[in-house]
Amino acid sequence: MTYCVGLYLREGLVLLSDTRTNAGVDNISTFGKMQVEAVPGERVLTMLSAGNLAITQAVWNRLQEGVWLNGEKLTLRSVDTMFRAAQLVGQAVREVFAADGASLSAQGVGFDISLMLGGQIGGQAGGGPPRLFLIYSAGNFIEATTDTPFLQIGEHKYGKPILDRVVGFDTPLMDGVKLVLISMDSTLRSNLTVGMPIDLLVYRAGCFAVTLRRRITEEDPYFRSVAEGWSQALRNAYLALPRPNWPDLPAAG
Amino acid sequence: MTYCVGLYLREGLVLLSDTRTNAGVDNISTFGKMQVEAVPGERVLTMLSAGNLAITQAVWNRLQEGVWLNGEKLTLRSVDTMFRAAQLVGQAVREVFAADGASLSAQGVGFDISLMLGGQIGGQAGGGPPRLFLIYSAGNFIEATTDTPFLQIGEHKYGKPILDRVVGFDTPLMDGVKLVLISMDSTLRSNLTVGMPIDLLVYRAGCFAVTLRRRITEEDPYFRSVAEGWSQALRNAYLALPRPNWPDLPAAG
Repeated sequence: MTYCVGLYLREGLVLLSDTRTNAGVDNISTFGKMQVEAVPGERVLTMLSAGNLAITQAVWNRLQEGVWLNGEKLTLRSVDTMFRAAQLVGQAVREVFAADGASLSAQGVGFDISLMLGGQIGGQAGGGPPRLFLIYSAGNFIEATTDTPFLQIGEHKYGKPILDRVVGFDTPLMDGVKLVLISMDSTLRSNLTVGMPIDLLVYRAGCFAVTLRRRITEEDPYFRSVAEGWSQALRNAYLALPRPNWPDLPAAG
Repeated sequence: MTYCVGLYLREGLVLLSDTRTNAGVDNISTFGKMQVEAVPGERVLTMLSAGNLAITQAVWNRLQEGVWLNGEKLTLRSVDTMFRAAQLVGQAVREVFAADGASLSAQGVGFDISLMLGGQIGGQAGGGPPRLFLIYSAGNFIEATTDTPFLQIGEHKYGKPILDRVVGFDTPLMDGVKLVLISMDSTLRSNLTVGMPIDLLVYRAGCFAVTLRRRITEEDPYFRSVAEGWSQALRNAYLALPRPNWPDLPAAG
């Protein structure tokens, strides 16, 4: 399993992924699920992946080699807008399905994949503001908006309540870092198949360069302070809430 | 969908269920998922149910009529220990599967059900301390212990992180009420198929009577204060956490 989360904020993008890959519970490995294409001054694109590792790696390999889209062979380094980049990733997914789907199906393996693509393309092409997409296994996709400024793939439920309650398009970028780490920590605690280390990328809108990229290990003092501080804050918060005051309430105990 | 949660605490049991039943998204109804059998001075048993409503109602109807277990026809009012009560519920599930499983399967409908049973049986039978069980669709079951003092059925993931972080066997009963309401609120916010009102039952160990039973509506001032207070507390808690202090961090913004 996997957990990846992306925030689409006025100040830019915050992307976080775990690194656990497992085939059953006794075959666990570490594979990065964050791929970055950056041409400083021109573009930064980041792809996060969840699902079958062979499929996600196949998609990335095809994207490296170039994918035909509307009569042109393109890569994430040559495509001229984020919308076209999302189409390109979707097209790569469809090519892998065309190549491998039948063989997988014959083995009873589903075509299980979901991808997130975030970034900004500028330069001469002038591709517009940062955008964040979620690409499905069918190759179609949705986009984060100011109404719903985050996307998740993989094991998303444990880490969703904090995002639902707190994240807004105007959340500052570095507060966004805190929030995705809290969301990841909630997931790590509840699901064994999501595991450390985790990969963080922060992209500030208009910079056309990676603002911050960091692999965070269990020993990272900041991550530990967030995880422990958050647990303590939750304990304090629930203790501070009043007990019920219903008239039919029995004597305290 | 459904969310039900039960806490197994030194002081007693706290049980909470939602009331939403849906067949698709345009056929939504309110059905209580909490059934109580109480013989004051002798026993209190509460069953919470998730899954196909026709199956859960069929199980409850059979339990009302009496189920054969080891040569005796028993109900939750006549069984003499909580372990036997859990066996009886499991047996009722198996009877419903034997009666309806093939017909459901022929229609492509799975035998989808999970149940929670909590309570205490005393009196002359002297059945022991309170216990809390989760009964599967196969009729087998597990029990909450001091190590893992809560059980959940239905849409359990959104409401699990707070329980994982905070609930212990020594959590006071009325703090347990706060916690299950927080856990339910997190679920209500993230999953439309879990809905208000919600049913709460509190049982204090050794009382052999329902301590508190309450249907909580959206207008309940205490529930609203918990929901709003919790959201506010989370916002404050995340703002109070320090921002990262990594050496490679770009200028603040």
